[in-house]
Amino acid sequence: MRTVHVELGERSYPIYIGSGLLPQAAAYLIKHGLSVKSPHLIVTDDKIAPLHLETLKSSLEGAGFRFVISIVKSGESSKSLSVYEEVMTTAIQGGLDRNSSVIALGGGVVGDLAGFVAATYMRGISFIQMPTTILAHDSSVGGKVAVNHPLAKNMIGAFHQPELVLYDLDTLKTLPAREVSAGLAEMVKHGLIKDKEFAYWCKEHASELLLLDLDALGYGLERGVAIKAEVVSQDEREGGLRAILNLGHTIGHAIEAVGGYGEFLHGEAISIGMAGSALLAEALGRGEGIYTETTAMLTSLKLPVVLPDHLNEDDLMAAMMHDKKFKEGTLVFVVPDSIGSVSIVKDIPQTLVRDILKQLRKGGKVNV
Amino acid sequence: MRTVHVELGERSYPIYIGSGLLPQAAAYLIKHGLSVKSPHLIVTDDKIAPLHLETLKSSLEGAGFRFVISIVKSGESSKSLSVYEEVMTTAIQGGLDRNSSVIALGGGVVGDLAGFVAATYMRGISFIQMPTTILAHDSSVGGKVAVNHPLAKNMIGAFHQPELVLYDLDTLKTLPAREVSAGLAEMVKHGLIKDKEFAYWCKEHASELLLLDLDALGYGLERGVAIKAEVVSQDEREGGLRAILNLGHTIGHAIEAVGGYGEFLHGEAISIGMAGSALLAEALGRGEGIYTETTAMLTSLKLPVVLPDHLNEDDLMAAMMHDKKFKEGTLVFVVPDSIGSVSIVKDIPQTLVRDILKQLRKGGKVNV
Ligand SMILES: NC(=O)c1ccc[n+]([C@@H]2O[C@H](COP(=O)([O-])OP(=O)(O)OC[C@H]3O[C@@H](n4cnc5c(N)ncnc54)[C@H](O)[C@@H]3O)[C@@H](O)[C@H]2O)c1
Ligand SMILES: NC(=O)c1ccc[n+]([C@@H]2O[C@H](COP(=O)([O-])OP(=O)(O)OC[C@H]3O[C@@H](n4cnc5c(N)ncnc54)[C@H](O)[C@@H]3O)[C@@H](O)[C@H]2O)c1
Ligand SMILES: [Zn+2]
Ligand SMILES: [Zn+2]
Repeated sequence: MRTVHVELGERSYPIYIGSGLLPQAAAYLIKHGLSVKSPHLIVTDDKIAPLHLETLKSSLEGAGFRFVISIVKSGESSKSLSVYEEVMTTAIQGGLDRNSSVIALGGGVVGDLAGFVAATYMRGISFIQMPTTILAHDSSVGGKVAVNHPLAKNMIGAFHQPELVLYDLDTLKTLPAREVSAGLAEMVKHGLIKDKEFAYWCKEHASELLLLDLDALGYGLERGVAIKAEVVSQDEREGGLRAILNLGHTIGHAIEAVGGYGEFLHGEAISIGMAGSALLAEALGRGEGIYTETTAMLTSLKLPVVLPDHLNEDDLMAAMMHDKKFKEGTLVFVVPDSIGSVSIVKDIPQTLVRDILKQLRKGGKVNV
Repeated sequence: MRTVHVELGERSYPIYIGSGLLPQAAAYLIKHGLSVKSPHLIVTDDKIAPLHLETLKSSLEGAGFRFVISIVKSGESSKSLSVYEEVMTTAIQGGLDRNSSVIALGGGVVGDLAGFVAATYMRGISFIQMPTTILAHDSSVGGKVAVNHPLAKNMIGAFHQPELVLYDLDTLKTLPAREVSAGLAEMVKHGLIKDKEFAYWCKEHASELLLLDLDALGYGLERGVAIKAEVVSQDEREGGLRAILNLGHTIGHAIEAVGGYGEFLHGEAISIGMAGSALLAEALGRGEGIYTETTAMLTSLKLPVVLPDHLNEDDLMAAMMHDKKFKEGTLVFVVPDSIGSVSIVKDIPQTLVRDILKQLRKGGKVNV
């Protein structure tokens, strides 16, 4: 088993990564002082429930824990205020009190939703994550929890750190191949922003990662969460440094919004976004050759790097203007300097961004 | 002008209390570093808007501030997730960013709602309170913000401290008499829990307070917020001590829930609740004579102390069992020891509480 400690003073917590952890969930919860007197809430989705919920339930029941369960519909549409209210209702009807915990068994959607419930139920109770996707290695570090507003993603949320994260690699075996690739997009992103060696390691071990080889996966997730944890420890509330984690996300979020959440997976969208950032870097005269290097890594992980035709530029620009990355009307982007290093660049003209979108649609640097 | 500092480390903030402050609002906001570049959101209700919104608007406009406005329906029903979502929509459409603020112009309802919006818009932006009720002297200290769930009051919320509180006594002149009394219930509560002299002062100055005499009101609000601030400074997240602020609230919340939010004002409900706590004190052999003393204070402020007949005991008990004050099934009450001092008493049998409700209905100590 691998353990990564996320250092956040009083709010520090461990991430346990390994095989066979979910059947021992109760032992970890007891170790972390979870009350057997108060009822708890498990939040999961209707794809994960038939696959992994029973394992968690039997572990908890065996140890005498009481709990209620919210099973939401699989997919981004569950990150809404109306589903949030339903989960709150289950929590209240289940009699959760201030010593209760909310346990998220699932991917980033379940984690973000359950985390926002935990952050705001009785003004905040304890939160535990049991990620079942690769992408959730990202969402399990940093304490960002949120639901979407019809007008903008992740607009309604809080910072709420988990008590612990229990990452059972075995649950990943049931993940569809497309979700595996999408999750690896955030993994390689962590290399691209801060660790050149790790970025290249991801490319070299692409086939093992795609096949969910336990050793490769364990190491990749450990490095991924460790890099994110390092950034978050230095900037818990996203005052500055933490913004580098948004590499690929400005364009990525716009793609998700315009495509309608659901057409593109988050990881796919940010993969195209990272390709876009690389193009932007070259257009700004930084990081020569970085577009080719970046897209080679992304395609090795079976990720898309071309902006599809049906996504209108005007719509994408409009979506970006609503995005949080735009402070007071100026355009801010995370731009790579080289593999393993990025900068925050302000005052990027909208015309340049439009130009990048056009190039991104053609699959690379072309005269447009 | 009187200023009370709420000491909370990094989250400390001042409360300015005085006459003529709202017309100078912009100057206070500039002093506290509010951005004129980012748009802000004013939240108020449809009773307050025609009376006081113009004053605030002209001050802000005069200083070049940009803002959007959410006017919600007056009353507790606006502390709901659906109104919360509407206010969020206004904020997003208004283009609020991370440097924006949410300004609550109103009573506790507007403050709690707007505060929860501020706490969760983009995971938290700055919050400013401009209270227009006496009761809001209570809600402007402590950072508790919340909306109600159909099953329980204040169940969905956060801790989010304001940047500053601007308390213009002139706005109170338009407050209906019943609201004045209700607000004074929380004021005298602050005396009852921690300051004997102040509790008696409230009774002695009852008629000036009811007539909104500026001197009496200014002093009363200053002491009220100062006492609450002292408690909150010692226990920001309600770990222990802060619970004493709940004097009268366990029964009070049940009265509000069973009566249907709206029949009783919050202050009226907790006034009956404080009478109930005094009865409980005497039943437990603490604080001899405290019931008579307490109810004399409350009635001097034209507050009710008798539980109305139509509120069913079974319903009240059921409502209390849902209340946050019940940890892990045990019943916890704040019970007075004497005027100006209270204790948290655990393990109070439900049968005793039922008995108190019966006495409370008869208006005092009788064999039931
Ligand atoms: N909070 C953060 O810091 C943060 C960071 C990154 C992403 N996110 C959020 O995470 C979300 C995306 O996360 P995600 O990709 O994990 O999405 P997800 O939770 O929707 O999971 C992806 C899909 O896989 C299914 N699934 C999950 N685990 C499975 C398993 N073990 N076997 C079979 N199917 C399984 C789900 O039902 C879903 O259909 C987005 O909403 C994004 O905004 C949050
Ligand atoms: N956050 C906290 O710590 C805290 C503490 C105590 C109470 N509260 C909450 O506060 C709420 C009650 O507060 P409230 O009594 O101020 O309620 P309120 O905001 O509903 O105001 C009472 C009534 O007076 C009207 N009004 C307000 N100001 C006015 C003015 N200047 N002139 C004329 N009319 C005016 C309002 O429209 C409303 O009808 C409850 O929801 C309670 O839960 C919160
Ligand atoms: Zn992401
Ligand atoms: Zn109160």
